[in-house]
This record gives sequence, C-alpha cells and structure tokens, in this order.
Amino acid sequence: MEQRIKLTVAYLGTPFHGWQRQPGQRTVQGEIERAVAHVTKGLRPVLVGAGRTDAGVHARGQVAHLDLPVSIPIESLRRALNAVLPETVRIMAAARAPAGFHALGSARGKHYVYRIAWGPTRLPWAALRSANLAPPRDREAFEAGLRCFEGRHDMASFSSPAALQGPTEKTLFRTAVHWGPRDLAIHFVGSGFLRYQVRRMVGALLEVGSGERTLDDLARLLAQPTPGAPVRTAPARGLTLEKVYYRSMVDSSALG
Amino acid sequence: MEQRIKLTVAYLGTPFHGWQRQPGQRTVQGEIERAVAHVTKGLRPVLVGAGRTDAGVHARGQVAHLDLPVSIPIESLRRALNAVLPETVRIMAAARAPAGFHALGSARGKHYVYRIAWGPTRLPWAALRSANLAPPRDREAFEAGLRCFEGRHDMASFSSPAALQGPTEKTLFRTAVHWGPRDLAIHFVGSGFLRYQVRRMVGALLEVGSGERTLDDLARLLAQPTPGAPVRTAPARGLTLEKVYYRSMVDSSALG
Repeated sequence: MEQRIKLTVAYLGTPFHGWQRQPGQRTVQGEIERAVAHVTKGLRPVLVGAGRTDAGVHARGQVAHLDLPVSIPIESLRRALNAVLPETVRIMAAARAPAGFHALGSARGKHYVYRIAWGPTRLPWAALRSANLAPPRDREAFEAGLRCFEGRHDMASFSSPAALQGPTEKTLFRTAVHWGPRDLAIHFVGSGFLRYQVRRMVGALLEVGSGERTLDDLARLLAQPTPGAPVRTAPARGLTLEKVYYRSMVDSSALG
Repeated sequence: MEQRIKLTVAYLGTPFHGWQRQPGQRTVQGEIERAVAHVTKGLRPVLVGAGRTDAGVHARGQVAHLDLPVSIPIESLRRALNAVLPETVRIMAAARAPAGFHALGSARGKHYVYRIAWGPTRLPWAALRSANLAPPRDREAFEAGLRCFEGRHDMASFSSPAALQGPTEKTLFRTAVHWGPRDLAIHFVGSGFLRYQVRRMVGALLEVGSGERTLDDLARLLAQPTPGAPVRTAPARGLTLEKVYYRSMVDSSALG
C-alpha cells in the first residue's frame, strides 16, 4: 500500500538548472529524486511539483508530492533526505498528504516575490537572491503599473511564444511593493502564472518606472494580448517562489 | 609612479578553495588578481591579503593591498572589478592606502565570528554561513570556556602541527557570544590567529558545552601548549572574517 507525501521545499536556485529533471543537468527535482532513491534503497517515485521554476529561480515554499510505500516512516524521511541533499536544497516539511491531494492539480494560488537591490555594492550573501538593477525613477508610475496587473487578464504578452500552452488567462489576486533604502521587494499573489510571467511583468514595470514605457502602453499589452511582445525579462536571480496555496490552506487575506 | 590601493573585500567562501592563490584551484586572491589583470589590460600586481582564510571560510571585511600606476583612477576601480568578479566576491571599498600601509604587516587585530545553527531545518540561504551543529547543553560551561581564551596565551594546542610557523603567542582582546532561539554567534577579537585557531577554539568549546571536556582540561590545553592536541575543528562554513583592524582605525571599545 502506498501513501502520498507532501513535501515543502526551499532552495537556492543559483546552482541549479531549474526545478524540472533534465538529462545531464543539475536540477532540484533531479536532486530530490536521487535523494529519495538513496534513502529508500532504490525506490524511484516521480516527484510532482506545484510549478517548474526556471534556472536560477529560488523557492522558500515550493510544494511537491510523491507516493511511497506506507512502510516508509514520514517522521524520519525529512531528516534522511536533508542528510543526503546538497545544503542548497532543504526539505522544510514532510507530511502525509490530504486525501486526493495533487501538488500541481490541487494548487489554488502562488505567491512570488521579486527582489531588486541597487547601491554601490551588496554583500555577496545578500546578492544571491536579488537582481542588481537601477531603482525605478518614477515610483508612482511603477506602483500604478503594478496595480494594472491586478484582476483577471489574458497574460499572453507576458510569456514567451514558445512557452505558450493552454489557457493564458490568469488572475492576480493581490500585489504589493515594499521599498527599502537600497532595495525593493514586489509581491505577486495569483491563481497561477505563465512561464516567465513574473519576470516579464517586473521587466515591464521597470520600463514604466524609468520612463521607457507609458502606463497606456502597459494597459495595451494587457488589453491586446500579443505573444512575443517586446518586454524585458528581469533576471532569474531576483525571483523567489514564496508559497503555494491549496484549498485547505487558503488564507483569505492573502488570496482575496 | 605607483600608488598603493587598499581593498576591503567580502566573499562567500563556499565556492572557493580559500583565499590564497593556488594553481588549478579557484581562490579569492586568484579571482581578484585575474579581475585586476582584466580591468587594467594586463597589469599583474600581487595582491597582499591581511590573512589567508581557509577553504570555505567567508569574509565580510577582508583587507588586501596592491600597487598600481597612479594613472589608474581609484574611483572607477571598485566598480570595474565588481563588474568582472563573480557575485560571490565583492570589492566593498577601494581607497588610496595611508603612507607605509601593508595589509598584512600593518594589521593590529582581527575580528572573527563563528555561527552555529540547529533546529530541524534551516533555509538554504541562512545555512550558507553557519555550521549545523547541536547547541551546547551547558551554556554556563560554554561561556566560562570562552572567557578562558581571553588574554595572552601560547595557542599551539589550537593550530595543527603542520601549520605552526613563527610565534604561537596570541592575544585575544575580547570575546562575546550572542544566543538566538536556534542559533548562536561567537565573536573573537584578537591580535592575530594561528591557522585553524578559531575553528579549534570553537571545537573545544563545543566539547566543553556537551560535557565531553572539562574546563580544567581546557585550561590545561592553554597552560601546556601541545601541538597536535586532540581538539575538534569546527566546520569552515560557520566562520567569517568580520573585520581587520589597523593602527589608524583601532576602535578602543572593540580592541580593549
């Protein structure tokens, strides 16, 4: 008999070629599947993630599931996996999944944070998880642009044509920006995100903040979805998948 | 005509084989020298560091000097080097050195911090700069042991026999420990440190804190210097060179 196990995973994206297993590449999924095979002495269950983060993207609360025989004690699984995994990947929690749970299919929302830092020099450990970019000169336009994204839109302009598959309408429940003296963090909580969507939304916002793009033009990208629209893609290193929301866990203040 | 330039350098030690240049190894000195050659179009001055941190040891305020023709503008040097260096090494400051300055010879003191964290799981970015070790059970003994190290002692028991060269008497001006709920940071401010000294002092303190070693035994290691004494060496990843003190910069509150 098998049990479904839900893992909450944090990782530093820098050394990995993204989440998804790929032959000949170091990926987070690949590392965890290898660790599972090691600690279970050869079992090779497929790990299903809530989302495929791209190369260089970090996660604080990625979620994945896998099915293992009930004979595997969940209590010691987290510790055993962490002992085998590289320090850049940590299983933060391992628990029996609720009935019918599917890491990808049951997901109801995701929270991403994009971090930007400027100023002459950042300490190397701070620099690992933020993009080194000039701050937006026009904060008001930047924040107005961010609000444009809220609600339900066809986001086809904000993915890449090659990555477009399936529906491109997505709902952004909530956005926020926190300004520091030399950095900022942009929060996006939405139903789901197309590939590159957050990084291209940030790229477009930086264009708005620097005056290269008008708010009208940003609104047009949303009103007239154009795959392959010329929008900057912000660097992967600034992006962190903060949390995945499931029905049972939905926090109405975050999602609503 | 040449000018002496003082660099303040921060680095994440994880990807490097220590500070000192070594053929076929990635080292911090090697990376910076290569960056200098690149931005000066081929000049190859030797970089002199205040101390040779070991493989995996980090620095927030390592200091180094190098001599360059006065035609090189210092203002743009920091920016140019950072543009070429990996993100794990940052030149935090570059300035004309005071007359007679020598990064190693003029150093009057150093401040090291050793970080330990415990608890089920640490986020990967927090884990980069701390050792994952059990907390000392007996905090009082641990702190009493730390105070034993203060003052002037022959520290030969706390290096490795192979690394012993020159005088082994060192003065520890000040120590401190900051306890967090799941971590601690041990501060050492001293005249200088033998190779492995901080990591072996921490190793001995952890032995005292766990009851494996008595305070009397620790005092004996100091009173009867014994190269090769059986003392645990704490992992490199917990250690950070925080600051190097020079005569002109001596902060009496820190050093005295």
